[in-house]
Amino acid sequence: MEGSGKTASFVKEITRKSEDISRWYTDVILKAEIADYAPMKGMMVIRPYGYAIWELMQAALDRRIKETGHQNAYFPLLIPQSFLQKEAQHVEGFAPEVAWVTRGGDEELAEPLAIRPTSEAIIGYMYSRWIQSYRDLPLLINQWANVLRWEKETRFFLRTTEFLWQEGHTVHATEAEAEEETLRMLGVYEEFALTELAVPVLSGLKTEREKFAGALRTYAIEAVMPDGKALQAGTSHNLGQNFAHAFDITFLDRDGTHKHAWTTSWGVSTRLMGALIMTHGDDHGLILPPRVAPYQVVIVPIGRPGGPDDAVAAAVDRAVTGLRAAGIRVTVDRRAEQTVGWKFNEWELRGVPLRLEMGRREAAAGQALLVRRDNRERVTVSLDQLPTEVAALLESIQANLLERARETIRTKTSIAHNYDDFRRLLDEKPGLIVAPWCGDSECEDRIKAETTATIRCMPSTGEIAEMKPQGPCLCGQPAKRMVIFARAY
Amino acid sequence: MEGSGKTASFVKEITRKSEDISRWYTDVILKAEIADYAPMKGMMVIRPYGYAIWELMQAALDRRIKETGHQNAYFPLLIPQSFLQKEAQHVEGFAPEVAWVTRGGDEELAEPLAIRPTSEAIIGYMYSRWIQSYRDLPLLINQWANVLRWEKETRFFLRTTEFLWQEGHTVHATEAEAEEETLRMLGVYEEFALTELAVPVLSGLKTEREKFAGALRTYAIEAVMPDGKALQAGTSHNLGQNFAHAFDITFLDRDGTHKHAWTTSWGVSTRLMGALIMTHGDDHGLILPPRVAPYQVVIVPIGRPGGPDDAVAAAVDRAVTGLRAAGIRVTVDRRAEQTVGWKFNEWELRGVPLRLEMGRREAAAGQALLVRRDNRERVTVSLDQLPTEVAALLESIQANLLERARETIRTKTSIAHNYDDFRRLLDEKPGLIVAPWCGDSECEDRIKAETTATIRCMPSTGEIAEMKPQGPCLCGQPAKRMVIFARAY
Repeated sequence: MEGSGKTASFVKEITRKSEDISRWYTDVILKAEIADYAPMKGMMVIRPYGYAIWELMQAALDRRIKETGHQNAYFPLLIPQSFLQKEAQHVEGFAPEVAWVTRGGDEELAEPLAIRPTSEAIIGYMYSRWIQSYRDLPLLINQWANVLRWEKETRFFLRTTEFLWQEGHTVHATEAEAEEETLRMLGVYEEFALTELAVPVLSGLKTEREKFAGALRTYAIEAVMPDGKALQAGTSHNLGQNFAHAFDITFLDRDGTHKHAWTTSWGVSTRLMGALIMTHGDDHGLILPPRVAPYQVVIVPIGRPGGPDDAVAAAVDRAVTGLRAAGIRVTVDRRAEQTVGWKFNEWELRGVPLRLEMGRREAAAGQALLVRRDNRERVTVSLDQLPTEVAALLESIQANLLERARETIRTKTSIAHNYDDFRRLLDEKPGLIVAPWCGDSECEDRIKAETTATIRCMPSTGEIAEMKPQGPCLCGQPAKRMVIFARAY
Repeated sequence: MEGSGKTASFVKEITRKSEDISRWYTDVILKAEIADYAPMKGMMVIRPYGYAIWELMQAALDRRIKETGHQNAYFPLLIPQSFLQKEAQHVEGFAPEVAWVTRGGDEELAEPLAIRPTSEAIIGYMYSRWIQSYRDLPLLINQWANVLRWEKETRFFLRTTEFLWQEGHTVHATEAEAEEETLRMLGVYEEFALTELAVPVLSGLKTEREKFAGALRTYAIEAVMPDGKALQAGTSHNLGQNFAHAFDITFLDRDGTHKHAWTTSWGVSTRLMGALIMTHGDDHGLILPPRVAPYQVVIVPIGRPGGPDDAVAAAVDRAVTGLRAAGIRVTVDRRAEQTVGWKFNEWELRGVPLRLEMGRREAAAGQALLVRRDNRERVTVSLDQLPTEVAALLESIQANLLERARETIRTKTSIAHNYDDFRRLLDEKPGLIVAPWCGDSECEDRIKAETTATIRCMPSTGEIAEMKPQGPCLCGQPAKRMVIFARAY
């Protein structure tokens, strides 16, 4: 009874997701020990369980980045103020968000140094030294690093003053190659989010107003949260020759003439942790897709307080050995001071995809009871078949989570034919609203000011890209194309 | 002839190691594209080839850190000034080296924020929130991160304003457990340096003067460079209860009373890259131990300019497939614009452990010619046996490099029985000098002031630990024990 009492109070501590997703999100991150508040405004600590998820995400993305021909490197944290100022739009966009180092040891610095908000400026400078000839191209480098942006309003993972990310920076001989690279990495992000995180995304071009400061064109992947808000989950920028001009990145081409190069940059960050958590969780806590779950299976031995008896212990050992040999990440919760009910609740909160219960009855029968986190289905499996069955169940959970998330996008996508329609949908059916647009930035600004909705992207492939506007833009002017609006994180 | 002409000029660009190890070191780092100067004083860029070495080192060490029960996490880059001040010795030691953020966006900060020179202060604060009971102990966390120390004199990897490292921070219920952890991680570092980097080290206790600011006791591993200078390659600190008192890290013990905990911290950094490069290179450039070589084998196809013929190409493909399947890191240098001689020199410069030459004759015979980087031995191997033979050769190279480095330590270790002896040895036979010491910090200071040599460590196990002083301390006072002096990087 003490157990069920604890259980009840334990679960009560989390706000229901359906009630208040924002409070649920904070509750679950704190209670599942994904992250904690740091004592400095807007900063957080990524705790071991959260960091283990990030490490799995990193490994899966790093593999893709290397498979597409990129190498990792490391550039300095600090960037001289004058470097940031070399590209006019870049400094205008980032200056308000920069943290400045003005003192080193006992000396006041002659020139303030920015903590990198992004690294185009310092990397552009280095590239101008490294690139001489067309033989040095393409140059394909990625960096895993921390960056800082002085944010006013912050929220775990979605917007923090410091965050972790990867930033790719590439240089090409031609505009076509730079555009190809920009789209290739957008595709890598899309596939990565889908396959590893079970987070489906829409991808497309950003408007002039929403593009990266200094880019020619920005592409983004946008996820849709259960509350209908969009979440920009990654960006890929064709920087044109803007940074090549600012930093003098030139090369001697095959034809014997010196030319300015074409550059790209692209990045995803710990923001993806936010997308992952918000997309899949439920009232009981996190639900982690198996591919990025630090523990894919948690084994809870069931027995008398103080530990299970010998037959149970032996069956648990056998299960662990078999699962580990099959490359499955498994942990055993042997804590004596917690009840079984408490453990069940805690591991549900922490989103472990499969719970394996092993009691005397199961041990005697050479079986294990498996409980899925996503749909709570229970299945009894023979220990002989355990690794195979668990592998299949994990795949099924991964697929189910993706399908659910896809369903969220489907049910939260609407088409608006006019501004009244648009405003009504925003309130009544929050989500993505596909609508005709004239292409005018001032129209975009007005809609944002009046509704807080922004154009998330202009898809270049797929169903929405092929839609023809049926009427005028929301503003009444002739429409050029259909775009996706949403309120966003 | 053009080829050999190029070759000659190429090799000439590097200072001979035996002539001037300091210039050789800089030359080889720049020419092999390990790192480059950043435009900010004391900072560097780790280029892809250098970073690939670091990634291999990271993976090998991270595995050991996890196997000993630690988990990774991530703490903020910035630390409030008041936090650094909580531990008196800590702030005194680090304040002169701190870079300060005083402005964020448009606002002047009320309190300056330090860019972490090390993270005891911020981690101590978080730990005080996380730890309530003996059940929360031990807490075993590690972080991979960048840190900044405002250095006046810098040198690639050995001393840079920003560097990359891992820092472990653990909390224990008792002094004995903290000491055990401190020594465990010292042992992990020692074994890691030996096994992975083929860099043998001496380990032992630091003197009071040389210990970490805020520590009870600091242990270190010390490597010996070919010029006889010592290089501190890693440290492990028993912090006692100093930080637990400063940050109020307390726990409710089994006996029902609240107690201050015992903490440790330990770290190694990109400085290890410097130790690796300096230990193994020769006049031709880098020599990388196979375990941390980004490419363990480079295949150079030999044929007419423009590319090898079909039989050679087929044999190269077969070799690559076989080696990759055996988990060996291999690259093929197919560049048409470079001569074979130029390629040989470049890959020697870059330290690839094995070169595989494949020409028409080898292809026709189903063989490959392998050339070892460490001793230039050439061996012809049948393609059928290639993966097995290469694996064996790589192990042999790894072992040979370690043996050579051990020989360096042996030949560069001397015993001094008095101060005259000591001063003569320092000049005539630079290296480690084992000498009797009285244990007095002022004596240590005077020797440092007069000779620039410092006590590198006081070994607690092994031959030197067991030596009894044969006479008085170098200063003439009664000696307490034998210690190791050296000039150091």
